[in-house]
Amino acid sequence: MTAQWWQTAAKPLDQPMQANAEARQQQLTKPSGSLGQLEPLAIQLAALQGRERPRVERIWISIFAGDHGVVEEGVSAYPQAVTGQMLANFVGGGAAISVLARQLRATLEVLDLGTAVPGAALPGVRQLRLGPGTQNFLNGPAMSVEQTLLALQAGRDSLLRAEQAGSELFIGGEMGIGNTSAATALACWLLDCPAAELVGPGTGLDGDGVARKARVIEAALALHGPALRGPLETLQRLGGFEIAALAGAYLACAQRGVPALVDGFICSVAAMLAARLNPGCRDWLLFAHCGAEPGHRRVLEALEAAPLLHLGLRLGEGSGAALAVPLLQLACRLHDEMATFAEAAVAPRAP
Amino acid sequence: MTAQWWQTAAKPLDQPMQANAEARQQQLTKPSGSLGQLEPLAIQLAALQGRERPRVERIWISIFAGDHGVVEEGVSAYPQAVTGQMLANFVGGGAAISVLARQLRATLEVLDLGTAVPGAALPGVRQLRLGPGTQNFLNGPAMSVEQTLLALQAGRDSLLRAEQAGSELFIGGEMGIGNTSAATALACWLLDCPAAELVGPGTGLDGDGVARKARVIEAALALHGPALRGPLETLQRLGGFEIAALAGAYLACAQRGVPALVDGFICSVAAMLAARLNPGCRDWLLFAHCGAEPGHRRVLEALEAAPLLHLGLRLGEGSGAALAVPLLQLACRLHDEMATFAEAAVAPRAP
Repeated sequence: MTAQWWQTAAKPLDQPMQANAEARQQQLTKPSGSLGQLEPLAIQLAALQGRERPRVERIWISIFAGDHGVVEEGVSAYPQAVTGQMLANFVGGGAAISVLARQLRATLEVLDLGTAVPGAALPGVRQLRLGPGTQNFLNGPAMSVEQTLLALQAGRDSLLRAEQAGSELFIGGEMGIGNTSAATALACWLLDCPAAELVGPGTGLDGDGVARKARVIEAALALHGPALRGPLETLQRLGGFEIAALAGAYLACAQRGVPALVDGFICSVAAMLAARLNPGCRDWLLFAHCGAEPGHRRVLEALEAAPLLHLGLRLGEGSGAALAVPLLQLACRLHDEMATFAEAAVAPRAP
Repeated sequence: MTAQWWQTAAKPLDQPMQANAEARQQQLTKPSGSLGQLEPLAIQLAALQGRERPRVERIWISIFAGDHGVVEEGVSAYPQAVTGQMLANFVGGGAAISVLARQLRATLEVLDLGTAVPGAALPGVRQLRLGPGTQNFLNGPAMSVEQTLLALQAGRDSLLRAEQAGSELFIGGEMGIGNTSAATALACWLLDCPAAELVGPGTGLDGDGVARKARVIEAALALHGPALRGPLETLQRLGGFEIAALAGAYLACAQRGVPALVDGFICSVAAMLAARLNPGCRDWLLFAHCGAEPGHRRVLEALEAAPLLHLGLRLGEGSGAALAVPLLQLACRLHDEMATFAEAAVAPRAP
């Protein structure tokens, strides 16, 4: 295979600026370490943004929507038409992520990568339809190679628009009935782990539904087994349009130097795929939360991620990442605005 | 003992409004429960504020500062003069809570209840000095009965000012070198638990320091043992000015109907004392975070609290509560502004 765009190296961290930020944290009027995770967070942002006092005021949110052929196996509590209906809700302002984006004064971009029931062309929805949803991965690959490459590129293009707008943080969100099944199948491959250990209720399956979902995923892993040679082939065969777009966006974040705040289970699986496709990508990913889906914690552990929130979220749409944005902003404000021991004439430690 | 002000009943929850808020949550365009802890949070705030769509925009923060005689036993990594120095930093705008209060557009009130090294009278610091810090509780009671009652009243008075200002949320913070020792001693009594299980490094003791702190607390528990008959006597003998003021503020929150967002270990101990003094107080307490001090988790468990953040914080000053405020605000915004299934024409569930 010839070199692909995502193999280009990630932008290196600014290590001198990281050292400056570390030194500054030691001088602020608080016991060292007393702000817990917010201290390394501010230092990491300094290294990523290349400024001693980072800031994350301009937020970009891209929501990638796509449907999943595997829904015909009865793996979701919601009908497939909901994917398209929610697109209207995203741009209409009534979805959770719409409310959160307004509060954060974030730019919200909504992309239809291929819903099964698209409805009328919606003003405000970017149309990049790659098909009427993916194929059922019990019958063959979920996507063609071409669809996979186009979806990765769609994510990259979103990040380039975010960069053009001067965004200081990129959030990817997803919408796709059935996409916890695709994400769980990918996680089984990434973690080399049986479906029964990772599968969960998604948006609301009962116990029988979860058991059926596990059987469907195991059957898919058995069917595709020898063909799952690497992250790209696995993404193509078991993934989905929105998952590929998220992976492409994260890869581009790392190359272009825009920190990404990763949302829930599906986004975290896309992030892990991105890190397999290009390990240098990992440094540019911040993890917003650990959600309710059982596989999420396992994926985060494998990524050695320290998520900021543990609120039992399982909505997707980028909502968990949006909820964590104020913590990033306050970590930056504390780092920037707190007085040093010298400035405040406070004794640093007992002699 | 004659009836005291804190024994007056807490304001009852608005149960019809709680039911309305529960019903609304079921209608919003998301799978039921998918916003995790934010859903019961919005419902609880509806019950507390008596409105179907609660809001927490006007925030009041009172920081209570006091010194501790037990510091002469070598239980803190910082010199006692820091308590007074930090008062200047709070009103000067350079402390963590000062930065956070600015970002939240919160009112920040700073009270000196008795620092050992008060320095010059600071503009912006409310002077309610009950003494030059408490007595060393290894030599006798930390406070007199009169000091204890005045400190409880000082907390109540802060809440009354907050109420007068139309505050929708009360945050208490504390500053006092040595106050994790006092709080741990109180927690040992509240939880009926040896000091070794609860003691921690506070703002930064090493292993030897932590062991010494445990011995000091055990000695105090042995000394005062039979006299620790109830929460008020225990607060008086082992507590401190700022801990008593926090307890008084929480009790007044419940009586006047202002939700309180409880900060870290010391505030949580004060909250547990308040709930022992008047069990109806518990409903009015929201818990912001579980911090790094080992006793904090135990106290939260005993209170059946579900803290919002787990960031390894151990600063105090009300900083952990301030960091959780955006989650409360976003929970309210989501509850208020999300579309219902009917409004958005989204299918609620698979048939």
